[in-house]
Amino acid sequence: MVRETKRKSQPARRAIRRPQRPPAPVTTRPSLDSLSLDHGKRTRLWRLLYGHGPGNGTLMILPLDQGLEHGPADFFRNPEALDTGFVFRLASEGGYSAIALGVGLAEKHQQDYCGRVPLILKLNGKTNIADDAEAVSTRTASVTDAVKLGADAVGFTLYVGSPNEARGLEDFREVKQDCERFGMPLVLWSYPRGRAIEAKGGKGTLYAQDYAARVAEELGADVVKLHEPQESNERCPEPYKSLKEDAPQRIRRVVRSAGKTLVLFSGGEKQDSDAAVLYKVKLYMDCGATGVMFGRNMWLRQREHALALTRQVHRILGRYGTEATEARSR
Amino acid sequence: MVRETKRKSQPARRAIRRPQRPPAPVTTRPSLDSLSLDHGKRTRLWRLLYGHGPGNGTLMILPLDQGLEHGPADFFRNPEALDTGFVFRLASEGGYSAIALGVGLAEKHQQDYCGRVPLILKLNGKTNIADDAEAVSTRTASVTDAVKLGADAVGFTLYVGSPNEARGLEDFREVKQDCERFGMPLVLWSYPRGRAIEAKGGKGTLYAQDYAARVAEELGADVVKLHEPQESNERCPEPYKSLKEDAPQRIRRVVRSAGKTLVLFSGGEKQDSDAAVLYKVKLYMDCGATGVMFGRNMWLRQREHALALTRQVHRILGRYGTEATEARSR
Amino acid sequence: MVRETKRKSQPARRAIRRPQRPPAPVTTRPSLDSLSLDHGKRTRLWRLLYGHGPGNGTLMILPLDQGLEHGPADFFRNPEALDTGFVFRLASEGGYSAIALGVGLAEKHQQDYCGRVPLILKLNGKTNIADDAEAVSTRTASVTDAVKLGADAVGFTLYVGSPNEARGLEDFREVKQDCERFGMPLVLWSYPRGRAIEAKGGKGTLYAQDYAARVAEELGADVVKLHEPQESNERCPEPYKSLKEDAPQRIRRVVRSAGKTLVLFSGGEKQDSDAAVLYKVKLYMDCGATGVMFGRNMWLRQREHALALTRQVHRILGRYGTEATEARSR
Amino acid sequence: MVRETKRKSQPARRAIRRPQRPPAPVTTRPSLDSLSLDHGKRTRLWRLLYGHGPGNGTLMILPLDQGLEHGPADFFRNPEALDTGFVFRLASEGGYSAIALGVGLAEKHQQDYCGRVPLILKLNGKTNIADDAEAVSTRTASVTDAVKLGADAVGFTLYVGSPNEARGLEDFREVKQDCERFGMPLVLWSYPRGRAIEAKGGKGTLYAQDYAARVAEELGADVVKLHEPQESNERCPEPYKSLKEDAPQRIRRVVRSAGKTLVLFSGGEKQDSDAAVLYKVKLYMDCGATGVMFGRNMWLRQREHALALTRQVHRILGRYGTEATEARSR
Amino acid sequence: MVRETKRKSQPARRAIRRPQRPPAPVTTRPSLDSLSLDHGKRTRLWRLLYGHGPGNGTLMILPLDQGLEHGPADFFRNPEALDTGFVFRLASEGGYSAIALGVGLAEKHQQDYCGRVPLILKLNGKTNIADDAEAVSTRTASVTDAVKLGADAVGFTLYVGSPNEARGLEDFREVKQDCERFGMPLVLWSYPRGRAIEAKGGKGTLYAQDYAARVAEELGADVVKLHEPQESNERCPEPYKSLKEDAPQRIRRVVRSAGKTLVLFSGGEKQDSDAAVLYKVKLYMDCGATGVMFGRNMWLRQREHALALTRQVHRILGRYGTEATEARSR
Repeated sequence: MVRETKRKSQPARRAIRRPQRPPAPVTTRPSLDSLSLDHGKRTRLWRLLYGHGPGNGTLMILPLDQGLEHGPADFFRNPEALDTGFVFRLASEGGYSAIALGVGLAEKHQQDYCGRVPLILKLNGKTNIADDAEAVSTRTASVTDAVKLGADAVGFTLYVGSPNEARGLEDFREVKQDCERFGMPLVLWSYPRGRAIEAKGGKGTLYAQDYAARVAEELGADVVKLHEPQESNERCPEPYKSLKEDAPQRIRRVVRSAGKTLVLFSGGEKQDSDAAVLYKVKLYMDCGATGVMFGRNMWLRQREHALALTRQVHRILGRYGTEATEARSR
Repeated sequence: MVRETKRKSQPARRAIRRPQRPPAPVTTRPSLDSLSLDHGKRTRLWRLLYGHGPGNGTLMILPLDQGLEHGPADFFRNPEALDTGFVFRLASEGGYSAIALGVGLAEKHQQDYCGRVPLILKLNGKTNIADDAEAVSTRTASVTDAVKLGADAVGFTLYVGSPNEARGLEDFREVKQDCERFGMPLVLWSYPRGRAIEAKGGKGTLYAQDYAARVAEELGADVVKLHEPQESNERCPEPYKSLKEDAPQRIRRVVRSAGKTLVLFSGGEKQDSDAAVLYKVKLYMDCGATGVMFGRNMWLRQREHALALTRQVHRILGRYGTEATEARSR
Repeated sequence: MVRETKRKSQPARRAIRRPQRPPAPVTTRPSLDSLSLDHGKRTRLWRLLYGHGPGNGTLMILPLDQGLEHGPADFFRNPEALDTGFVFRLASEGGYSAIALGVGLAEKHQQDYCGRVPLILKLNGKTNIADDAEAVSTRTASVTDAVKLGADAVGFTLYVGSPNEARGLEDFREVKQDCERFGMPLVLWSYPRGRAIEAKGGKGTLYAQDYAARVAEELGADVVKLHEPQESNERCPEPYKSLKEDAPQRIRRVVRSAGKTLVLFSGGEKQDSDAAVLYKVKLYMDCGATGVMFGRNMWLRQREHALALTRQVHRILGRYGTEATEARSR
Repeated sequence: MVRETKRKSQPARRAIRRPQRPPAPVTTRPSLDSLSLDHGKRTRLWRLLYGHGPGNGTLMILPLDQGLEHGPADFFRNPEALDTGFVFRLASEGGYSAIALGVGLAEKHQQDYCGRVPLILKLNGKTNIADDAEAVSTRTASVTDAVKLGADAVGFTLYVGSPNEARGLEDFREVKQDCERFGMPLVLWSYPRGRAIEAKGGKGTLYAQDYAARVAEELGADVVKLHEPQESNERCPEPYKSLKEDAPQRIRRVVRSAGKTLVLFSGGEKQDSDAAVLYKVKLYMDCGATGVMFGRNMWLRQREHALALTRQVHRILGRYGTEATEARSR
Repeated sequence: MVRETKRKSQPARRAIRRPQRPPAPVTTRPSLDSLSLDHGKRTRLWRLLYGHGPGNGTLMILPLDQGLEHGPADFFRNPEALDTGFVFRLASEGGYSAIALGVGLAEKHQQDYCGRVPLILKLNGKTNIADDAEAVSTRTASVTDAVKLGADAVGFTLYVGSPNEARGLEDFREVKQDCERFGMPLVLWSYPRGRAIEAKGGKGTLYAQDYAARVAEELGADVVKLHEPQESNERCPEPYKSLKEDAPQRIRRVVRSAGKTLVLFSGGEKQDSDAAVLYKVKLYMDCGATGVMFGRNMWLRQREHALALTRQVHRILGRYGTEATEARSR
């Protein structure tokens, strides 16, 4: 019963793979049909995957949790984005799969966009004033709040490997159990963080991201947001330390570790070049991602520029999707 | 802040109105923008009013609660409809605003239609084996079940005026409070029923339906399903007994009594003539209804016939809607 | 995604059908794979359908709720069966899919059979000392009790159409919600009962059984236990009253009305002829039943006789099953 | 649907703005009409904004939480203020929008002023005996207590950036969820505090206050109390460190960061010059604040002096308000 | 009712025992019949001990919690195992007694194996990014989740002797109480861990494992997973420090300390030699273990190799079991 969508351009990608390693299994992204989901999760994920955004089973999500996580500094390059209405409008006009933000922003700014843009309610957060050595993200809203706001998914940040990991896991369990009770999809921001991961090479390495991907699968997230994995360094544990893989190999590896969890890659800080943004989208999708969650790379551009770039991302994602099998069969 | 959508063909309708009465206020249907709603209800109603169905603020809903309420006898004229998949497929291909049915049918047959057709989960019911003298509808599912199934609204039958009315009202209160807690729209099947209403002229009269409309508004339903009000008879109380109004006047009256509650009219038993069905749709919409909930008139027709009739209803409803104001302003 | 198992001997059965009616859709029984079920229900139903009994997707269930429902009178013809251990041993040695009984019998007699014979814990009941005019079945155990006893399903009697139907529906809703919470399959004893159904022709007619089948589907039972529908009589409502169908047609009709609910037929009172018992098994299975729930016809026979008859039922059921699709595909 | 009140004296303010930066969007304060609020919050906020105080949508709030936060030392300059009755009388006679204090003071001193002066019940606090390196404010009353006391809002202190920020966020979530349940407006004392913010330039800088403003918006406060942001220093992170803005620019920036959250500025320690107090009121209002929360600057003045100063503040605020749209239309 | 199964090859083992010690009591493994268990636990344990796996009262369990506990690094030697479907298939085709894994893997990958392979739901876990000095395992699922997933047991890790032992014990109490409520067997991963055990010789010594075994018995686990106890070292406390026992003596000792708790031994890291794996199985069973829980030694082998090795383990276990007494007595 497990049907998966195969990569489109196998030959090209296979060329990248180094000969000295056995060929990795073909990278695929899980299709909605292939997932074990109750009707509520299936309905809500369908809206993200097929009812909005590219509409072909891929995801293009606009996040706006940076104001809490990083402070208003993140908006300096485009002060318009301080107005959450600006970002909602971008999500609506740009045809995003969903907008992801916290409870205050949703309550205050969603009204004119109710139904037009699916909402992923981010359930926890923190400021970055204190350092991240013992990072913990605290719940600021509940799954019930998400239901009441009409959200189609909830977002949860887990600081994997933090000395406070246990607190994050406890919160996660409660959130997950509520998600099961309400048929609410759960998007995990699976973020290696804290002094232990720093000692083992830092949060961005393949070791860290690969572990984060597997954690999402093990814990039962429906979707995971990851960062593009970087090369290993001397502090990484084996076997990662001596593993030499290029970027596509690394990305495919973490997608495989995520199993049946749909993978989104973060855009990270704003890149001035549109081409660089689009290159990343293509790279991630080629390697099996289900979509991207790009915030600053979008709303730090002027409105028309952001919309134009959004259209180009749409075009790329349009090449990777699948129709839902059910739809096809009718 | 209250904006309402005016009737389109005032002159025609005014001609029907009898001169000896003061002109009734222009019949309007409430717009989504004009309603006091939390974000969850607004989101979910938006999906019914603009995201599916005619998509212009009108509603075309396909109910399938007759199997419980009347037994399989209702399906004899088209045994295909015994298969709930047939009805889901009709709702999906016909582009209905929603399908309305009970928990068993939703759980067992929704899977391939999750997200494609909004679900109104009918929360209570009964068989018609015993007579209706003391009718009471019993809850068979909860608002939490509706959330878990991904429903966009719940349906609730209240037997207005039944000797068991109090039990219905108690259940209604609990359901309504859960609806507020979860931002779930509540569609009231406001049905006069029982020996007292029979003694006062029967469940179908203007007296009965007008009262039922006001009850929905008073209790806080978001949408009310009514039957077309029939002429008064000798057993009806005054002033209804001596009130002489034609069909459009009666319909407009109950729509006005429903206030800011969106009004749907039932199709009742199957009518063999398509023209009769379409005439009713036009009549109800002319008189301020927000839409229709026609079941047997649809799924007792063969599939192609039902789809063709559905398209014609679509065409009529397409003439009455309004774009959401927010949409217009952009 | 809906796969169903087709009848095996269509030509034979089609011959029975009267020419003046359009051919009914082919009677099928739902396969486990085709059902929307959570993992708990799927696991437990798998144990009944494939892990025990005939093991091919059919069911042969041994009920023992007659002691409460009818009193010890039911055991007069074979006093051995007063010892529940006798019945457990029959279920175990006979290779039944499950034994179905109440909390007291399970607690006191299950110990030596834990795991060997799946348990269907019957959750409600009543004596038959008072008459059935306003029949209501009262809960004597909970779904949690069933979990604690290691049961693989719960059984619930609903007196469809009784003046106390509402009480039954309320109890049912709570039981069902617990079943969803625990992944516990729900077997509905869907029994028309009470003075209203008597006035409409009695509990055994096609009208009554057809309605009962649909009620199970509408309410969300996983399995329904019905009685073989009898011919209509003058008191039955139309269209049943004037419907002339032979036994297979009637059985197929109620199986179709049960939709995706697996149908079991009761054996009713003990029949002295083994051939009559086996004829019924074949008839029910030919018409789309998933299995039989025969009690008195088994445990009112002496042990060796009962085991021999059981083996013959096994042999018949063995011709109707399907391997689980998943298994086949590997 | 979002209507906002424009600044009155744009030209004057624009002159202050430095030419080398692009003109910031016009500073506005959110109107009550433009906010997404349930009826309870709207009713209670209306009482603060239009039913009391200047009555034109601005706020003049008299806080008295200093006795807990700083000890009786704060009253040495006017021992009369040790008697909470003195402060209640000042609030009442001075026509304040509300008085803000803790549960003990409210219980003991509110009696003669119930209804006369709206109450903002401060829900948490601490002493300043220990230092603020790991500051956390603890709940001393609940939202239910506030309802019972007839309060029109609750106040909550969050120590943004404290090592104990997580505890504050947890408390905040619970308080906020109760506020939603009861329709109770939530005023956030958004206070950067703790060793991490000290290391990044201190609690008073534009960096700290700007972050605090955004936190209030992100978390869903209805009103936020801030301090006037001071110039950046060498320890502030970029881009604040190299940002050169004058006082109005800084104030406008934090008001914009607060989004749809109404901004109040604190008066801080008592200033001997009335003119200095009034200058601040004008400055804050010019820059988009909804009002001021001045405590020591009022109740550390002798009664007549305080009342006279209050009247002058009234006069200034009177120039900035808007009638509620609803009021206008009647 | 307490019957126990005697060791088979006493003479051989007795030869190893040193003469200067009193003969240890004959090593036995507890039989299911001999245990005080409610019907639910008995039913579920029967399925593990007799309904699946070797089916003779021994256990061969396939664990897959390494992805969370160690990260994807554990799969590098056989990337196929990253696909949990591969491991489920191995468990199913290999005829394991059960598969043991966490909630995410169960939810996402169990569907095709429901009922075919008993599930032990692992309820807690952590990553190994931070070190183990203060190890604590956090709950990621509940016993109710296990019931809903159709699990036949739950698994729980207790870090015996960790500075966070108390947190583990608290969690254990809640889990155990739920297990009693639901008749759910509890498998304890009894793992000495943390800086204190390191100071006392390390987690693998006889001292540590012997203590861990007794802790399982004291706390009321039904089954305990241990590691083969290693020789004492200088840091071990007395009397272990000066105790000289060979491997079988040590193993028998911890089995005896586990009392009526069934003992499973872990396989630890993958061993390249099949013979070494099989030697261990035989050694553990000879010394009274009820079975083995070997993960990496199985799923890090290629599928055919893993199946062949599994068959050999089956053959060994087949020599140690007992039929359930009940079965025998009839």
